[in-house]
Amino acid sequence: MFRWLLLASLVMSTAGAAETPPIAIVIHGGAGTILKSEMTAEKEADIRAKLEQSIKAGHQVLQDGGSSLDAVTTAIRILEDSPLFNAGKGAVFNAIGQNELDASIMDGETLNAGAVAGVKTIKNPIDLARTVMTHSPHVLLVGDGAEEFAKNQGIEQVDPRYFHTERRLRQLQKIQAKEKLRAEYRDSWFSTVGAVALDKAGNLAAGTSTGGTANKRWGRVGDSPIIGAGTYANNQSCGVSATGHGEYFIRAVVAYSICARMQFENLSLQQAAARVVKQELVEMGGSGGVIALDKDGEVAMVFNTPGMYRAAIGRDGTLQIKIYQD
Amino acid sequence: MFRWLLLASLVMSTAGAAETPPIAIVIHGGAGTILKSEMTAEKEADIRAKLEQSIKAGHQVLQDGGSSLDAVTTAIRILEDSPLFNAGKGAVFNAIGQNELDASIMDGETLNAGAVAGVKTIKNPIDLARTVMTHSPHVLLVGDGAEEFAKNQGIEQVDPRYFHTERRLRQLQKIQAKEKLRAEYRDSWFSTVGAVALDKAGNLAAGTSTGGTANKRWGRVGDSPIIGAGTYANNQSCGVSATGHGEYFIRAVVAYSICARMQFENLSLQQAAARVVKQELVEMGGSGGVIALDKDGEVAMVFNTPGMYRAAIGRDGTLQIKIYQD
Repeated sequence: MFRWLLLASLVMSTAGAAETPPIAIVIHGGAGTILKSEMTAEKEADIRAKLEQSIKAGHQVLQDGGSSLDAVTTAIRILEDSPLFNAGKGAVFNAIGQNELDASIMDGETLNAGAVAGVKTIKNPIDLARTVMTHSPHVLLVGDGAEEFAKNQGIEQVDPRYFHTERRLRQLQKIQAKEKLRAEYRDSWFSTVGAVALDKAGNLAAGTSTGGTANKRWGRVGDSPIIGAGTYANNQSCGVSATGHGEYFIRAVVAYSICARMQFENLSLQQAAARVVKQELVEMGGSGGVIALDKDGEVAMVFNTPGMYRAAIGRDGTLQIKIYQD
Repeated sequence: MFRWLLLASLVMSTAGAAETPPIAIVIHGGAGTILKSEMTAEKEADIRAKLEQSIKAGHQVLQDGGSSLDAVTTAIRILEDSPLFNAGKGAVFNAIGQNELDASIMDGETLNAGAVAGVKTIKNPIDLARTVMTHSPHVLLVGDGAEEFAKNQGIEQVDPRYFHTERRLRQLQKIQAKEKLRAEYRDSWFSTVGAVALDKAGNLAAGTSTGGTANKRWGRVGDSPIIGAGTYANNQSCGVSATGHGEYFIRAVVAYSICARMQFENLSLQQAAARVVKQELVEMGGSGGVIALDKDGEVAMVFNTPGMYRAAIGRDGTLQIKIYQD
C-alpha cells in the first residue's frame, strides 16, 4: 500500500513538473568597455547585489503567477531607483546639465507598446511607458507633452534634482572640459537598463530605460524608446531589450530584427541574436548588446563589447550574474 | 551600307538599353478613407497635378544622374510646400492649435538615416532630417533641440503661422467641437507624404514627412519619424515609405518588416508588402498603406484603405497617378 502511494505520488509529481509552464527572466544594466582594471571589488559587489535584487524581484512576480509585464516593470524600477545605472536616479546629464530620460515597454501577447522620450520629472520612466501603453491611444509621447500626460495619470513626478548624482556630474564636466565628445561618446550608453520576462501564461514582455548619452544635445533620442530598435516582444518569436550605441541600433532595427530572423529565417534565439549583434552591428561599427528570451524560456545575452552587466534566471531556476565575457 | 549602319545602330541601342541601370521613383500623399462621393473634380485635379509635379521632379533628378537621396528630397519638398497634404504647409493642427512636424530619411547604400519629430518652425522637415543624417552623429532629434540644431545648420525656419491653413483649422475645430477624437482619429494620418527612389548607381533611398494626427496631444509621435516603422531603405532588400495609423505601424515595424521578409523569407517586394499591409496590419486593426521599390526598380503601392494618393514612374518610364483602389 505504501509503495503504491509513493509510486502514485511520483507519477503525479512528474506529470505536474512536465505540465508546469516555464518561467524565465533576464535583465541588463548596460554594455560597454567594462574593464576589470577600472573596477573596484566594492563597486563590482554593489552592482552584482543590485542586479541580484532586481532579477529576484522580477522572478518572484513570475513565480507568484504574475504577468511578464509586471515582472519586467518590477525589475526595471529597481534598476531605475539605483544610482549605479544610467536610468532614473543616476542618469547621465545632457549638454546643458539636465537628466532627460527615455523608456519603452512591449507586451508580446497583444503587441501593445508604450514609450516616452525626453522626460525630466518622471521618477520611474518605465511606469510612464506602461501607462502610455495602457491608458493612451498612442505608443510614443515625447517631452513636455509626455509630462503633462503623466500628471493627468497621477504618475509619480519628482524635482529634476532627484536624478542628480555627483558621479554623473563629474562625468559631464570631464567630457565637456576635455571637449572630446566623440571619444567619450563611444561608451556613453553604458548602463542603460532593461528586462525581458516569460510568465506562466506563456506571454513575453520586454522593457528598456535609459538616460541616453552623456553630454547629448539637440533633443537627441536613441534606441531605448524606439519600439523595434531598443525593445520588442512578440509571443510568436521572442522578447528583446537592447543597450548600445543607439544610432546604430535604430538603423539596424536591432530588437525586431532578432525576432524577424527567428520568425522568417528559422534561426534559434541564440543564432538570431548573434547574427545581429556579433555580425551585422559589428560590420556597421555599432557597439553594444542585447538580452533576449524566447517562448520556451531560452535565454540569450549577447554583446560585442568587453562587458555587459547582466543576470538571468532561466526555466531551470538557476541564477546567473555576469559582467565580463564568459 | 545603309542596312549595315542601321543594324549596328540597333545592336548598339539594344546593348545600351540592356546596360542602362534601371531608375524608378514612387511617391505617396497619404492613405485613408478617400471617397469619390466626397471628392470634387477640382480637388482631384489639383491633387493629381501636384503628385505629377512631385514625381516628375524627382524622376528628373534620377535621369540627370542624381542620387536617390536627392530625388526623394526633391519630390517630398514639393509635397511639403503644397497645402494639399498633411506635411509642411497644410499640416494638421495639434490639440493646442500648433503644427508639429515629423520627418525621416534613409540611405539604402550606407544605412545612414536621419529624423526629426515635433518641430514647429522648419519649412521643409525632410531637409532637416537629411541634415541630421549628414551633419550630426545622431539619427533622431526631437522638439526644441531639433530646432536649435536646425538654426546652427542654417536650415530655413519660418514663423509657425506659415503652416496654418484655413482647411486644417476648420478640421481641428470640427473635431474639438464634436469631441469625437476617436472617430476622426481613424483617418487623421490621411495625407502624410513620402517618396522612394532608385538611382543609376543602384542605390535606394526613402523618406517620409507628416504633420501627424489632427488634435494630437501630449507630444504624440507616430511612425513617420521612426526609422524601421515609417521609413526604411537597404540596397540588399528594398526602400519603403509608409502612411497610416502610426501606432500600429510602429508596433508592426512596417517599413523594416517588408525589407526583412524579402531578405529572410525570400518573398518578392509585392508579396512582402502585401503580407504586412493586407494581412498583418489588417489582423492588428491598423489601417494605411506603403509605397516601396526594390533594387531592380520593381514598384509596390499597397494599402488596406479605400484609397491612397500615389504616383510612380517605373523603370520603363511609364507614369502612373492613382487615388482609389485599382
